[in-house]
Amino acid sequence: MKKIFLSESEMPKQWYNLMADLPTPLEPPLDPSTNQPMAPEKLAVLFPHALLEQEMSSKRWIDIPEEILNIYNIWRPSPLVRADRLEKFLDTPAKIYFKNEGVSPAGSHKPNTAVAQVYYNAKEGIKKLTTETGAGQWGSSLCFAAQYFGIDVVVYMVKVSYEGKPYRRVMMETWGGKVIPSPSNLTESGRNILKKDPNSPGSLGIAISEAVEEALGSNGKAHYALGSVLNHVMIHQSIIGLEAQKQFEKIGDYPDIIVASAGGGSNFAGLAFPFAFDKISGKKPKTRLVAIEPSACPSLTEGKYEYDFGDTAGFTPLLKMYTLGHDFVPPSIHSGGLRYHGMSPIVSNLYNDKLIEATSVSQTDVFKAAIDFARTEGLIAAPESAHSIAGAIREALKCKQTGEAKTILFNLSGHGFLDLGSYQSYLEGKLKD
Amino acid sequence: MKKIFLSESEMPKQWYNLMADLPTPLEPPLDPSTNQPMAPEKLAVLFPHALLEQEMSSKRWIDIPEEILNIYNIWRPSPLVRADRLEKFLDTPAKIYFKNEGVSPAGSHKPNTAVAQVYYNAKEGIKKLTTETGAGQWGSSLCFAAQYFGIDVVVYMVKVSYEGKPYRRVMMETWGGKVIPSPSNLTESGRNILKKDPNSPGSLGIAISEAVEEALGSNGKAHYALGSVLNHVMIHQSIIGLEAQKQFEKIGDYPDIIVASAGGGSNFAGLAFPFAFDKISGKKPKTRLVAIEPSACPSLTEGKYEYDFGDTAGFTPLLKMYTLGHDFVPPSIHSGGLRYHGMSPIVSNLYNDKLIEATSVSQTDVFKAAIDFARTEGLIAAPESAHSIAGAIREALKCKQTGEAKTILFNLSGHGFLDLGSYQSYLEGKLKD
Repeated sequence: MKKIFLSESEMPKQWYNLMADLPTPLEPPLDPSTNQPMAPEKLAVLFPHALLEQEMSSKRWIDIPEEILNIYNIWRPSPLVRADRLEKFLDTPAKIYFKNEGVSPAGSHKPNTAVAQVYYNAKEGIKKLTTETGAGQWGSSLCFAAQYFGIDVVVYMVKVSYEGKPYRRVMMETWGGKVIPSPSNLTESGRNILKKDPNSPGSLGIAISEAVEEALGSNGKAHYALGSVLNHVMIHQSIIGLEAQKQFEKIGDYPDIIVASAGGGSNFAGLAFPFAFDKISGKKPKTRLVAIEPSACPSLTEGKYEYDFGDTAGFTPLLKMYTLGHDFVPPSIHSGGLRYHGMSPIVSNLYNDKLIEATSVSQTDVFKAAIDFARTEGLIAAPESAHSIAGAIREALKCKQTGEAKTILFNLSGHGFLDLGSYQSYLEGKLKD
Repeated sequence: MKKIFLSESEMPKQWYNLMADLPTPLEPPLDPSTNQPMAPEKLAVLFPHALLEQEMSSKRWIDIPEEILNIYNIWRPSPLVRADRLEKFLDTPAKIYFKNEGVSPAGSHKPNTAVAQVYYNAKEGIKKLTTETGAGQWGSSLCFAAQYFGIDVVVYMVKVSYEGKPYRRVMMETWGGKVIPSPSNLTESGRNILKKDPNSPGSLGIAISEAVEEALGSNGKAHYALGSVLNHVMIHQSIIGLEAQKQFEKIGDYPDIIVASAGGGSNFAGLAFPFAFDKISGKKPKTRLVAIEPSACPSLTEGKYEYDFGDTAGFTPLLKMYTLGHDFVPPSIHSGGLRYHGMSPIVSNLYNDKLIEATSVSQTDVFKAAIDFARTEGLIAAPESAHSIAGAIREALKCKQTGEAKTILFNLSGHGFLDLGSYQSYLEGKLKD
């Protein structure tokens, strides 16, 4: 069997919340004006109460509302796929599986949380959401989801992506969204950046500042939505790993190594956290959970574990996380979705506790892996997801050396149909590390 | 249930060949030099024997080789999806289903025949295939398939698409293909066209001439592959309709109306022919089979039923088909895959026998339907496939008027992630009919 499917009725009905099981409790977000734990009320200008409740929740299982399941079933459960042709190509004794999140209408795992966030905002009467997007995966996911609940979306898109990925913008507009290149002159934060560098390529941090600023200035009419980093996002993404667990159960296997790329952390968390539960609880203590980051933006492997802002301008609470510094502007690598200075506090917490590993890969290694994958498994992966492929290949080649027939699972978080420009750069030898 | 899946083991193991059941026998292809039926040997310079045998076959069921099933299972069986949100949006009593062929790695139904053609060529020792492509769907499918059998592919891509859809070209190159804008100065046929019009946007007919010319001049080293029109292509595509029949059986329903866009005819044939068998055999005589073509290139609805060349330069045999004339150069509409002057001889035969219907839709109606579909069902359709959506919506709105709860099935032959440029033109109001 090449693909392991679940029926819609087998789709998990609850999300998993790893906060219930963290060996070291999460340190709270701090109010930058007082350096004291942030009062939830202060965040209520940006987020609906239901999401703030999830953000602080220590409940292990959280019911997925029917309305969300109804949208999920447009594309979920997503298939678990055996990469048997890649195995043969690598001549490895390892078994390689991937969860294909690229089958969603927006083409990535991001709608898992977009649908949830839109739902809870709509339920509390919000009619407009602001957000940022790097590669466009998150922005398009939010626009896709918002149309089902009558919410307008304004997306600040990192300028280098806005210019390099026009199709992503059109996709957002097709679903009714409004897209603004960031830094823009529509916000104070954008204008400040442009004053210093009129040719700024932008960054996720800057775009977050702009989106937050617009929501803050809306007198409660607009909320803000974040596609990664925050705890509630990790909760929503857990459906990926929960499905994978059911799928492995069907074939009587269990992954020894789980590999996923990590930008803000939601793609890694989505796949790995349900397995982290098995690991922490002692059910599967030896499973390795490996986060892969770009060597050009290595927050886990080279950042510091300290309180930092989530954005560039300093509007957000301070989060305890691995960070390269909130004013870090990464080079314009093609994996826009991984150009973030920080890392999800929960992922950071696990890394600091040595419950997960992290490693980085160079851009050319990533595209080499993407081409090998396309020429064996047939699928064109997003550059972000190709980090996972590169990581999985690295593990599979270790197995070849040791002769161990390990089971490797990676997250194919999205397809690369809208990233073929970067494939072109690689194929033409123009891509630098 | 939103999506009806089949397991890999439920995938049909035989293709259906409608030639076995045509009420009026198909008229043979003619040799243009003699006006006599073409001797199969003469075609053997272009096609492998196994495909020529299928081309002339009157066997109703043809076994699908294991090697082909093994590649099909990368993405097949494809889901049958209930478009319940579109139904609600249209406020129609009709039930609307679509077969989603966009889930293939190349993003369309074309790999169904690409894999088969490559397999049979490889089995007979061929190492190189030449072909043409319009929108790029066929070319990319052939490149995708060829990599599994060690075959090199040279694709002549209609110049207007080559320039307007650079990502499609990169996709072909990602899978190892070589892409040449057509008309090119590499062939006599290309040079002749460029002499008359150096700015020729190209057409499928011209690109076919170039690809055939290269194969003919290869001294038997290269064969040629065609993505539509020919009988063997229709046979391979029958897997779409055969799967759909099994899927409808699972939910205890049967389509009253089947709608699919028609360029060369393979998309329509793939979905409709197994149902045409039910209709001709009297099992379901009232099912309507409706081909949708662009009003800018209306071969069935405005062409003549006569012998014509399949290409522009006159290299191919003469085929009895509905045609706008082999020198017809359609306007540069966005549905590159539907810009073909002729129509599959079998589809033409059925139309002439009034067993199927045909109707045309304008480009703006097509994109309006695509947007309505994206904003209800979430999926971004290829412009070619959006013709089917427009046709299905037209039928659903008729049901709204009559109050009939008919079951409509259409073919979503491909996704539109690489066609967002044309969505942009539509959204910006720049698209003309």
